Amino acid sequence: MNYFSSHFKLGILGGGQLGKMLLFDTRKFDIQTYVLDPSDEAPCKIACNKFFQGSLTDFDTVYNFGKQVDVLTFEIELVNLEALEKLESEGLKVFPSPKTLRLIQNKGIQKEFYAKNNIPTAPFEKFSNLENLQSAICNLQSAIQLPFVWKCTEFGYDGNGVKIIRTVEDIDTLPNVECIAEEMVPFKNELSVIVCRNPSGEIRTYPVVEMEFHPEANQVEYVICPARIDEKVAVKARAIALDVSEKFNHVGLLAVEMFQTQDDEILVNEVAPRPHNSGHHTIEASYTSQFENHLRAVLDLPLGNTDSKVAGIMVNLVGAEGFSGDVVYENIEKILGWNGVTPHIYGKKETRPFRKMGHVTIVNENMIEARKIAEDVKNTIRVISPPTPEGGV
Amino acid sequence: MNYFSSHFKLGILGGGQLGKMLLFDTRKFDIQTYVLDPSDEAPCKIACNKFFQGSLTDFDTVYNFGKQVDVLTFEIELVNLEALEKLESEGLKVFPSPKTLRLIQNKGIQKEFYAKNNIPTAPFEKFSNLENLQSAICNLQSAIQLPFVWKCTEFGYDGNGVKIIRTVEDIDTLPNVECIAEEMVPFKNELSVIVCRNPSGEIRTYPVVEMEFHPEANQVEYVICPARIDEKVAVKARAIALDVSEKFNHVGLLAVEMFQTQDDEILVNEVAPRPHNSGHHTIEASYTSQFENHLRAVLDLPLGNTDSKVAGIMVNLVGAEGFSGDVVYENIEKILGWNGVTPHIYGKKETRPFRKMGHVTIVNENMIEARKIAEDVKNTIRVISPPTPEGGV
Repeated sequence: MNYFSSHFKLGILGGGQLGKMLLFDTRKFDIQTYVLDPSDEAPCKIACNKFFQGSLTDFDTVYNFGKQVDVLTFEIELVNLEALEKLESEGLKVFPSPKTLRLIQNKGIQKEFYAKNNIPTAPFEKFSNLENLQSAICNLQSAIQLPFVWKCTEFGYDGNGVKIIRTVEDIDTLPNVECIAEEMVPFKNELSVIVCRNPSGEIRTYPVVEMEFHPEANQVEYVICPARIDEKVAVKARAIALDVSEKFNHVGLLAVEMFQTQDDEILVNEVAPRPHNSGHHTIEASYTSQFENHLRAVLDLPLGNTDSKVAGIMVNLVGAEGFSGDVVYENIEKILGWNGVTPHIYGKKETRPFRKMGHVTIVNENMIEARKIAEDVKNTIRVISPPTPEGGV
Repeated sequence: MNYFSSHFKLGILGGGQLGKMLLFDTRKFDIQTYVLDPSDEAPCKIACNKFFQGSLTDFDTVYNFGKQVDVLTFEIELVNLEALEKLESEGLKVFPSPKTLRLIQNKGIQKEFYAKNNIPTAPFEKFSNLENLQSAICNLQSAIQLPFVWKCTEFGYDGNGVKIIRTVEDIDTLPNVECIAEEMVPFKNELSVIVCRNPSGEIRTYPVVEMEFHPEANQVEYVICPARIDEKVAVKARAIALDVSEKFNHVGLLAVEMFQTQDDEILVNEVAPRPHNSGHHTIEASYTSQFENHLRAVLDLPLGNTDSKVAGIMVNLVGAEGFSGDVVYENIEKILGWNGVTPHIYGKKETRPFRKMGHVTIVNENMIEARKIAEDVKNTIRVISPPTPEGGV
């Protein structure tokens, strides 16, 4: 198959920032791309060869889009699975496969898959609705007891759909949906390993990264590569991530989020079958970025070197509280003057509190130095609105 | 000035591969770009915000294009200078400035500028036409004697417009144009230093690179960073490049091509006021690519770190002899399997013998290893046409 400057077409479901960064590599290789996204202002709209505006969850829209491409992939999991299954059954190459996506899309099924396949994960119980959860907890019929972590099984992302439940009263505040109750595991670190695998079975892992949380707010502040953990723990984490990828028979990127427990056990929290926030630093820090390796994988090309050239830290740029409307990146000129600092601006026209607007990568030969600069970046740049009527709230 | 996700527009004259690589960084920062290029199939056509098809040498076309943007730059020198001068006189920011471009566009004026400013360069004499050249050489009225290097003063690039003249008969084969005759200087190495300078006067140089030539064919085969030369020579080369940039009062990138003579003198050969083939490796090898630093410079943003993360080597991908038409990159899958190898495919639909179709960067911690892999790349990938009627010649 000739992909380069040819008539070959790669279809991408979703035109957000992940797709946008993937397009840097399709452009570098001059591979034609068709993109489907509901928003007329999707960051992918330019830089793809053909943009289609439409719903990612509508069967016909996704099916008809897929009929126009040679290989189909996605940058977001919330897509119409039935359409992907029909397209695959008709011979289209869909990577990651709908089979894998079905196991991942529903967190209940995903957790049961871990249990069935002896993949270490926190103890949990699944409930078909709120009432079952309530009676099981209140009547102590469940192995899970208060406090526990509640997760709705579908359509949750970025913390939404996840709650820590401490009292019976907390339970009453939950929506009546299928959910899982998960034992609260005290952990030292949240880690992530991105695995890359192609249809030929070639498989590579990126170095383990560490998510550093804000001491008060329960929010990831820094993604740090390599994680500042014991080498033995890193080896174990990469081995478990490989095992997860192989058991899913996954093709493309799989981001495996894990907990490092107090006694250095590794528990798989959840996975994402696509380029991931915990891999953005690979653009500047690695020999091959996660995006290029996703592209190589879904096209069954040889995978690129996942080693790091230098240490890398990522800081998310989210909309500051109290600002909505036109966006201004306050002090971005200042941080551009610092060593190894690269802002990525996703191209969303309007900011909203906590909206992901971009990220900043800090690379340095010296991790301590990188961490210092990252903190300065975090404390200097702000995503706000201009001081006009529509700015501010 | 707010450049990021704003209404600001950067205009780029020329939509070829240099512009295409520059657009990776305008996209990364979400800076709006307008591009003008004569070809409807220009590599920049997608990934810019607005594409204009038109002549770069026509006054009205360039002038009217310039009136629509906030800052104007170019990726090719052969643009209408009068239009740039009028736009600048009307207050548009044009970087590099037409003043600088005027000194560079004509090789005679460029050489005279070096002489006047005590910038070391090979001895030369300028002739307004062929007849003057002939009589001066034949009557030994010139300090320049056979053999010498002939260069037409305008519209020459990539070796075209440059000839080595060994005999009086050779002179008769030359076109009747303004030209310079330059003393043939025996040299050890051809070197290049890319300088980056912003309007505020911040200035940085990239490490010295070495162009390694094919033993027989007089053609650059590898651009090697860092150059394998004595540190004292490297320091001198960077100092001279800085001096050249400051004397031109240049803004943006300036690629300074130099000869290292047998006795380790540095002679400036010529300059290019734009991203340059000798800096393509910076995308993978440097903390800040030449393209990002060009963008930072013309927007008067702080310049990025020009140091290298790892050693980098670039191999040009030119169309193989005997093939014209649809392009195939033979064995590209093979080289993608090697460590630190990144092909850049410019997106030209048709190959022709010696046409620049792309380049391959090889990065490695170890220069000797990088050089080995680069040679394997050079001997493995071929730019050809598919075996069809229109393929081949």
